[in-house]
Amino acid sequence: MSEKMTAAAGSVGNGGVLHIDGARLHARLEALAEEGATEGGGCGRLALTDEDRAGRDLVVTWMQDLGLDVHVDAMGNVVARYGDSDLAPVMMGSHIDTVARGGRYDGNLGVLAGLEVIETLIAAHVKPQRSLAVAFFTNEEGARFAPDMLGSLTYVGGLPLEEALDITCSGGASVGAELRRIGYAGPHPCPGPVPHAYVELHIEQGPVLEAAGTDIGVVEGVQGISWQELVVEGQANHAGTTPMAMRHDAGYAAAALAAFVRELALELGPPQVGTVGSLNLHPDLVNVVASQARLTVDLRNTDEAVLRHAEDRLATYVEALAEREGVRISSRPLARFAPVTFDPGIVGLVEETARRMGHTTLRLPSGAGHDAQMLARVCPSGMVFVPSVAGISHNPAEYTSPGAITAGADVLLHVVLALAGEDSSIDTPGHASGQVSR
Amino acid sequence: MSEKMTAAAGSVGNGGVLHIDGARLHARLEALAEEGATEGGGCGRLALTDEDRAGRDLVVTWMQDLGLDVHVDAMGNVVARYGDSDLAPVMMGSHIDTVARGGRYDGNLGVLAGLEVIETLIAAHVKPQRSLAVAFFTNEEGARFAPDMLGSLTYVGGLPLEEALDITCSGGASVGAELRRIGYAGPHPCPGPVPHAYVELHIEQGPVLEAAGTDIGVVEGVQGISWQELVVEGQANHAGTTPMAMRHDAGYAAAALAAFVRELALELGPPQVGTVGSLNLHPDLVNVVASQARLTVDLRNTDEAVLRHAEDRLATYVEALAEREGVRISSRPLARFAPVTFDPGIVGLVEETARRMGHTTLRLPSGAGHDAQMLARVCPSGMVFVPSVAGISHNPAEYTSPGAITAGADVLLHVVLALAGEDSSIDTPGHASGQVSR
Repeated sequence: MSEKMTAAAGSVGNGGVLHIDGARLHARLEALAEEGATEGGGCGRLALTDEDRAGRDLVVTWMQDLGLDVHVDAMGNVVARYGDSDLAPVMMGSHIDTVARGGRYDGNLGVLAGLEVIETLIAAHVKPQRSLAVAFFTNEEGARFAPDMLGSLTYVGGLPLEEALDITCSGGASVGAELRRIGYAGPHPCPGPVPHAYVELHIEQGPVLEAAGTDIGVVEGVQGISWQELVVEGQANHAGTTPMAMRHDAGYAAAALAAFVRELALELGPPQVGTVGSLNLHPDLVNVVASQARLTVDLRNTDEAVLRHAEDRLATYVEALAEREGVRISSRPLARFAPVTFDPGIVGLVEETARRMGHTTLRLPSGAGHDAQMLARVCPSGMVFVPSVAGISHNPAEYTSPGAITAGADVLLHVVLALAGEDSSIDTPGHASGQVSR
Repeated sequence: MSEKMTAAAGSVGNGGVLHIDGARLHARLEALAEEGATEGGGCGRLALTDEDRAGRDLVVTWMQDLGLDVHVDAMGNVVARYGDSDLAPVMMGSHIDTVARGGRYDGNLGVLAGLEVIETLIAAHVKPQRSLAVAFFTNEEGARFAPDMLGSLTYVGGLPLEEALDITCSGGASVGAELRRIGYAGPHPCPGPVPHAYVELHIEQGPVLEAAGTDIGVVEGVQGISWQELVVEGQANHAGTTPMAMRHDAGYAAAALAAFVRELALELGPPQVGTVGSLNLHPDLVNVVASQARLTVDLRNTDEAVLRHAEDRLATYVEALAEREGVRISSRPLARFAPVTFDPGIVGLVEETARRMGHTTLRLPSGAGHDAQMLARVCPSGMVFVPSVAGISHNPAEYTSPGAITAGADVLLHVVLALAGEDSSIDTPGHASGQVSR
């Protein structure tokens, strides 16, 4: 069947090109969104809840209906395989858990598009040289269990299974107990088999593609993330009776820090971003100078050196500010991930495939974390982004147009076809595009 | 008895000077602090609660034990009078309600020092030409019913009695109902009789006197207060995927506003103060650019023109910031009081009396509101401040040393003696000091 596959991949941009069925993909997106549906058209399927189980059951049924070989591993990751090659498969996938009040595209799209790619090939009687797999990984969002991307992290051996299963949510339930409860503590080993390559279609969750009027985002990597919590200890004072010069105002210090984070990001320039999204004062009263402030700082960059420089600059500012204001400022790391660079061969392949299909493209980093960054630890990996209207995500208002979704799934189809039949396109960096469809 | 009074007042700094009994005053402060005592040595007697009733009952008992004529008016203000002159009395006083977790000095000191002054005179068989009165006013703190200084405001006719009685607390109970419930809806009319003069001893509630090493604060007036709430409406965005240039960050705007308030106060110089004591973000998450921020701005100055200028400068900044950041910022006034200037005669009398008694003095404005500013609407009024250790108040840790309290009460004694017998010292501005003890 490898001949046929190559022909299909090679026919991009010509007549007789394989296309996914946009209506079928949409029908599945709609049906999955019914599980855990929330007001306003959103979805709430926190990991390993009853809603998540219902979503899982539905997707697994679809996988089985296509005759795929479905494996559930000990972390509840589900991998469905199409084909019977002994070669490592090309894997697609994402996650189907959501944040508490999320949308219907985040994660779901990557899983259901993978399923649609496989159904398209089955319908066209195309069986690539390598098998294809579509996976959904447990607890990607991190909204119920920390850390996020837990299932894929464990799948690639980044966290021992026992530790992952022992993680508890704020209600006290453990991952292991909840997996057993919903029937997804599977028999297959985790870490799981290493794929030949991994490609994930995802909504951008940001405004860049829409603002640029671009169809397809070619994801070069995932931004490194530095999260910290800063606690400022000042002195509570009467807002009327305490002269400015005698204050140790934790609220002012927090404001100065938030303003500095913004200035720093602007000074370092794109893709550096910096956000103070959470800020709380104590006692938080109109007429009391705050004794304490607690704020978070979120710094991200695709360049680890620049990200470290940003952290250093912030630390220097914190020290000087504390000295100047007579306050104490402590810092606690909340999360730290180095940037991930996706395989240049796959990045080039995504770009070239999209262009040959007539789509406009933009290379960009992912600002959010994705399962693909975990898979990138063990195999060549990449991502395809489609535009998020107004950049909204993690919100019932999350929306990507049917046309954009179909375009993204078509790109996914032809990227994995190339990967499943044309080995050389991955392993040679910079080699990519021109040779993919040869 | 006016001869004797004049002799007493005139003997300041010489032998045979009248002094209050510091131990007796302290014993009453301690006893009153037992009513509504809280952990850490604090007091919780919110206005018109059972605790407030117990405190009132205790003070009224002390007043009656001294044989004073005790009047409770329709607002629950309590005035005890010593002497039987037909002339308007010289009034001392303050309040005995506290904030929820307050200290033992705020308010209580002014009332109990007034009582101590009268007991000292009774013991010394001194009956001044004018009667003396000591009052405590209902709901000065405003911690249960808004506005603060409600009892004294109504006493001077600043608010119709019916309106005052209809005010409800957040639990729904009205001032009128609560007064009846605790037995303090008195038969005497409110507004009440206009005193000849009013003098209030109070803790500073700020750090200025302690920092300057000064015994007695000569209060020139009360700062004007401008409170407003600002609400910033921006746009929620993913902190990783939204480039800095595409943000409308309500959190940053709030931080910039808080930093501006501080810069503005520093630029205008003392006595201008500016505080952002309350600041809340929504959704308040580490990885979401805030869609909304809500913050309060507290601006105070003794000069109404400068205070207005500060408000104008802030409004101009708000407008420019909203334009620059693409956010909407709305402003809602929470409170606005013009500055109060105390009677120059009384201010001078307080200063001269304190100095003649060997105390160091410092003229300063009050940064907090006090009943004296309401009485100042109808009669010459003034205040005496004693140092607050570390400027702490509205807190169980509120503390003023026994020596400082005795010194303040002694100054109060001789100031009211002068006012009760030496009429000319008040009505001629700038006339004050040298002539008071003539």
